[in-house]
Amino acid sequence: MEPFRVHILGCGSALPTMKHLPTTQIVECRGKLFMVDCGEGAQLQMRKSSLSFTKLGHVFISHLHGDHCFGLIGMISTFGLLGRTATLNIYAPEALNEMLSKQISFFCRDLGYEVKFHAVDTYKNQIIYEDRSLTVETIPLQHRLPCCGFLFREKPTLPHIKRDMIDCYQIPVSQINNIKNGQDYMLPDGSVIPNERLVTPADPTRAYAYCSDTKYMPDLHKLLKGVTTLYHESTYGTDNLTMAEKYNHSTAQQAAMVARDAKVKQLLLGHYSSRYTDEHVLLNEARKIFKNTRLTNEMDIIDV
Amino acid sequence: MEPFRVHILGCGSALPTMKHLPTTQIVECRGKLFMVDCGEGAQLQMRKSSLSFTKLGHVFISHLHGDHCFGLIGMISTFGLLGRTATLNIYAPEALNEMLSKQISFFCRDLGYEVKFHAVDTYKNQIIYEDRSLTVETIPLQHRLPCCGFLFREKPTLPHIKRDMIDCYQIPVSQINNIKNGQDYMLPDGSVIPNERLVTPADPTRAYAYCSDTKYMPDLHKLLKGVTTLYHESTYGTDNLTMAEKYNHSTAQQAAMVARDAKVKQLLLGHYSSRYTDEHVLLNEARKIFKNTRLTNEMDIIDV
Repeated sequence: MEPFRVHILGCGSALPTMKHLPTTQIVECRGKLFMVDCGEGAQLQMRKSSLSFTKLGHVFISHLHGDHCFGLIGMISTFGLLGRTATLNIYAPEALNEMLSKQISFFCRDLGYEVKFHAVDTYKNQIIYEDRSLTVETIPLQHRLPCCGFLFREKPTLPHIKRDMIDCYQIPVSQINNIKNGQDYMLPDGSVIPNERLVTPADPTRAYAYCSDTKYMPDLHKLLKGVTTLYHESTYGTDNLTMAEKYNHSTAQQAAMVARDAKVKQLLLGHYSSRYTDEHVLLNEARKIFKNTRLTNEMDIIDV
Repeated sequence: MEPFRVHILGCGSALPTMKHLPTTQIVECRGKLFMVDCGEGAQLQMRKSSLSFTKLGHVFISHLHGDHCFGLIGMISTFGLLGRTATLNIYAPEALNEMLSKQISFFCRDLGYEVKFHAVDTYKNQIIYEDRSLTVETIPLQHRLPCCGFLFREKPTLPHIKRDMIDCYQIPVSQINNIKNGQDYMLPDGSVIPNERLVTPADPTRAYAYCSDTKYMPDLHKLLKGVTTLYHESTYGTDNLTMAEKYNHSTAQQAAMVARDAKVKQLLLGHYSSRYTDEHVLLNEARKIFKNTRLTNEMDIIDV
């Protein structure tokens, strides 16, 4: 299977601590990198992860709290210093456009590439990016200000051709694409090998949903159909349910309820409040509801 | 002697690398902390150094290149989240005022403390801050945009009273301050002990000058009288003298020439171009001209 992974560059909440940086993730899909949120220090975390700056063309910002976007201007500036020429696309709530433009014209006067802003309507569930490998959808979330998650959905791939059948029937290379696309194969004697004998099914498609920051949304799972890996914020444990409600955040247990209802394969926790010195409290609470849950940590690389 | 130290939080140049963060220093003098420049990641570096956020009341920004101020908004935001109430004073070129105000009103709406902006005239050599322990002067530098260094000058302390003299003449505590301030002491029998027998001289005053970023200024030493420790940028080695001249930076050798001419006690190098994987090249070049030179590195604590 082609790589479809999430690189965790930061998984803390608003207060950076000795353990966690603010939220930044890189979604890697078939050779392209997509950044989700961009906390202070994101550019340095990319370097530490040996992730290529040039493979990053699209940055998705969930909402305009500083811990999710203070890293943007430094990264944009660095890309300029490194001589980038390719457009960098930023998808974010409209209000960032003016602020970011001002910062860029103030601090990065001779930027040698375009920073293209795409205003995101955080209240709609719609596809905002598409290429031949995947689509990215917005997932409306409920936080203290407009906020949405992002769903990276891999497009279906073609079936795999069986190597032994190629050898057996001496099928020429020119026919392989046709067969992958469903054609039968006719032998020189006129007999036909049906397509299903020549191929094994395509890999199942995978999908990654990033949901941060949000209060618990009992119906969120309806937007997460087909998601294999779900990242759902878990700022608090049940000991701080009142805090979670007050600040429109979720508990680990609530994250697990979403994962369970969405029938995902695995749940990733993050956006931990700095009050938790050991996040296993959160993990244990979540696992009681959804077993295949794991904590994220900086530098983790997780298959979707 | 009371502590007077520099904490190096970042000593790289514009491109953050695996080795160096952009420029940030903390000057610690008699219990107070002063920040000089504030690169991305400064707040986290302070945490790593166990430097108290509450002891920091004044931030000095040398110029408005991003690698010297991108850390400000994140730090200001974090101080707000931590419930700071004390004013934070920012001394910087006027142009930052509007940009920073916009960022603060956008990202830190309910900030519980005042961020007070003090516009700095980078072209003048003048005292811009004073308390009972020290003064801070601007040092005009020559860079691609308005830029100044900062000179932290400790105020003279009082002489030390000799403990054995107190015991010998049974001098009451009430008289000690008078004696420290120069008075003689009269014994009950009317005989007078001259002041110079009762005290040893005050500690020599120390001064720290921070000079970054600048092209080589042959007359800079004239503004550095009495400086004991000089930090002077050394972006390049002599192999890149042309680059230094083109971008208004200095070589390590030029930094050493300033240190030699200013007759300082020690020279600190920093703001290394990312092209130098081993900065000892820079150190060796500087030492040929000024022996007591040292490289700075993140987390170094250096006595002034």
